[in-house]
Amino acid sequence: MNQLDLVRELAEKSQTKIVMLVADGLGGLPLQKGGKTELETAATPNLDRLAACGTSGSSVPVLPGITPGSGPGHLGLFGYDPLEFKIGRGALEATGIGFELGPDDVAARGNFCTLDTAGLIADRRAGRIPSEESFKVVERLQGVKIEGVETFVKPVKEHRFVVVFRGPGLNGGVADTDPQAVGVAPLDPQPIVPAARRTADVAKEFVRQARALLKDEPKANGLVLRGFAGKPQLPGYEELYGLRAAAIAVYPMYKGLARLAGMTLIGKAQSLDEQIDELGKCWQDYDFFFLHFKYTDSTGEDGDFAEKVRRIEELDRAIPRIEKLGPDVLIVTGDHSTPSRLKSHSWHPVPTLLSAESCRPDGLTKFAERQCLQGGLGMFPAKHLMLMAMAHAGRFGKFGA
Amino acid sequence: MNQLDLVRELAEKSQTKIVMLVADGLGGLPLQKGGKTELETAATPNLDRLAACGTSGSSVPVLPGITPGSGPGHLGLFGYDPLEFKIGRGALEATGIGFELGPDDVAARGNFCTLDTAGLIADRRAGRIPSEESFKVVERLQGVKIEGVETFVKPVKEHRFVVVFRGPGLNGGVADTDPQAVGVAPLDPQPIVPAARRTADVAKEFVRQARALLKDEPKANGLVLRGFAGKPQLPGYEELYGLRAAAIAVYPMYKGLARLAGMTLIGKAQSLDEQIDELGKCWQDYDFFFLHFKYTDSTGEDGDFAEKVRRIEELDRAIPRIEKLGPDVLIVTGDHSTPSRLKSHSWHPVPTLLSAESCRPDGLTKFAERQCLQGGLGMFPAKHLMLMAMAHAGRFGKFGA
Repeated sequence: MNQLDLVRELAEKSQTKIVMLVADGLGGLPLQKGGKTELETAATPNLDRLAACGTSGSSVPVLPGITPGSGPGHLGLFGYDPLEFKIGRGALEATGIGFELGPDDVAARGNFCTLDTAGLIADRRAGRIPSEESFKVVERLQGVKIEGVETFVKPVKEHRFVVVFRGPGLNGGVADTDPQAVGVAPLDPQPIVPAARRTADVAKEFVRQARALLKDEPKANGLVLRGFAGKPQLPGYEELYGLRAAAIAVYPMYKGLARLAGMTLIGKAQSLDEQIDELGKCWQDYDFFFLHFKYTDSTGEDGDFAEKVRRIEELDRAIPRIEKLGPDVLIVTGDHSTPSRLKSHSWHPVPTLLSAESCRPDGLTKFAERQCLQGGLGMFPAKHLMLMAMAHAGRFGKFGA
Repeated sequence: MNQLDLVRELAEKSQTKIVMLVADGLGGLPLQKGGKTELETAATPNLDRLAACGTSGSSVPVLPGITPGSGPGHLGLFGYDPLEFKIGRGALEATGIGFELGPDDVAARGNFCTLDTAGLIADRRAGRIPSEESFKVVERLQGVKIEGVETFVKPVKEHRFVVVFRGPGLNGGVADTDPQAVGVAPLDPQPIVPAARRTADVAKEFVRQARALLKDEPKANGLVLRGFAGKPQLPGYEELYGLRAAAIAVYPMYKGLARLAGMTLIGKAQSLDEQIDELGKCWQDYDFFFLHFKYTDSTGEDGDFAEKVRRIEELDRAIPRIEKLGPDVLIVTGDHSTPSRLKSHSWHPVPTLLSAESCRPDGLTKFAERQCLQGGLGMFPAKHLMLMAMAHAGRFGKFGA
């Protein structure tokens, strides 16, 4: 019996509320040997207080040593095995801008680029064309017409857009056309599985017509396509957990992930404070709340240790406002680590705390990586976190007689 | 390669003895935030001494957050994956009263109830009819005759009994007939899978004849059936581990579980002291001894923190008598937690200790929940415990060249 079937069997209705605050890329590393991580350095009186009455541990996003992208990182936190459920980049990007993928859709992420007179890539990001300009270029691409297929082209930001092909029998098994280099031509769309031959032909025709429509653009006269993918089939939060789930995120990617899990996107918050305003407003209407905080990741990616510390402290100051709403279960975790020393996602376990009435004390008084190693949640696969959230929320029946 | 195949491949014969003392529902919770659990409160000099020279850890019965019934809880301790092997309530109950289920059997648990003149349930437990009375009522049900099926009706306790249907092609996929309410009629037995249609008909005929036989009973003039189930197919301890296994338990449920795993039921002990008497008497004849101590669970279920502490101390005082027999491996654990604060089974990990010559010291000096978090066994799935028992007993060969 797998985890999702088990969840379906045991889930019970309740009035309890669960908040999962995901600090993206939360885990870190010391800059020097023997030093402290970003979280260990930050002053986090509120998180420390939660750790003292809750239970902490270390979340392993996929498997030890495996560095996840945002997709697998969040799937694990939402209780899906990231090795079983995969989300292609195109599907993720489309969902993230609010495009509702259907079962017949294949989505790809597009990048405008600048081609020289020989048709070779001169600038892989089309001179980082501003969004306003890019949106007009995308508008032109609405002129593409391919027989038997409906085509949607949607702007994302700057040189990035999404294309979705809709039609029976399409397949995401098409290789990227981005050669990831300048001075070479974009690749032709090629099937990587036989069933994707027609989809590759559709993509080829799209590129042909697009090139014609864009030939007079000064910057965005070419394009590459990446991450072809159909809609992943994730059972939703309501069906699975019996939870009406709300997602309060700022960035499209995380909104998209939440939507794939059947969560409702709430508000248009642009800051953590606004996110918590939204949380308060929709508190009565949902059972589960996913709050996404981006800046612990982006500062890590920037390699800015001090700024990541500052962002963690910003997160800490937001905790009392969340507590005031009275969640039955409050979880603080991350989808992966992003140590500023590495300037990238990493495989290191993610400090995680769960605060609820039914927590067994584990003796911790601080929330940080090395304390979490001694915590009552132990070292656990991220996909188990929702099981504990459901248990502490009194939303699981007993398993077996 | 799954765990059971691995065990079969590696198990070797030896003269060593393993004792597994299961304190049912051992793990607990503090009554107040920052307080101590029952086990942390109890004075347990003997367990503490074992912890100091052994290895401790936290057992996760099924998965984090999953609260097991007694069935899955014990299956895990015996080394079977409780998500793979399931025991229906009827099969468990039948085995527990010493009924040897065969491959053609379907068992259900029966409850006598009181029906009013309209045939609606007036009392779901037949006025908690005393066992002596109930046994006579069960006697009457021996009069039921169903063509092509052998029927066994056995008393359990008070209003509870077990019915077993024996015949080719029977199937446990029949829904409970207990509406779990008064003022309504018992449900008709209904198949929940097509293959159980005949079994449902058999059950219907049983109920029809039983109602006629019981129509003049003042209290037990009706019945409901629950937990229809065939015999689970568990590989036995001897075949699997090469262990001659003895079970010394007081309560039918745990005797039943042990019997399903191929253990021999020993004696008729009614107390822990008597159980240890029995242990001494059969010491030479077996390799593995399962001792079940019920009262850490029942006091937890009663919400009686102080009494659970007292029962833990009773358990502690029994340890030296077990040690005196010289087991090579002595394990103290529970099948799940039963915090008296929750008055029920819970999902919290179970403090576990293993004492053997080959234990690597983990620096602990006390046996209790928060100490176990720092122990050498770490946080582990219950189904792995038997692997460690076998290893420390010198009963496993090397895996691979």
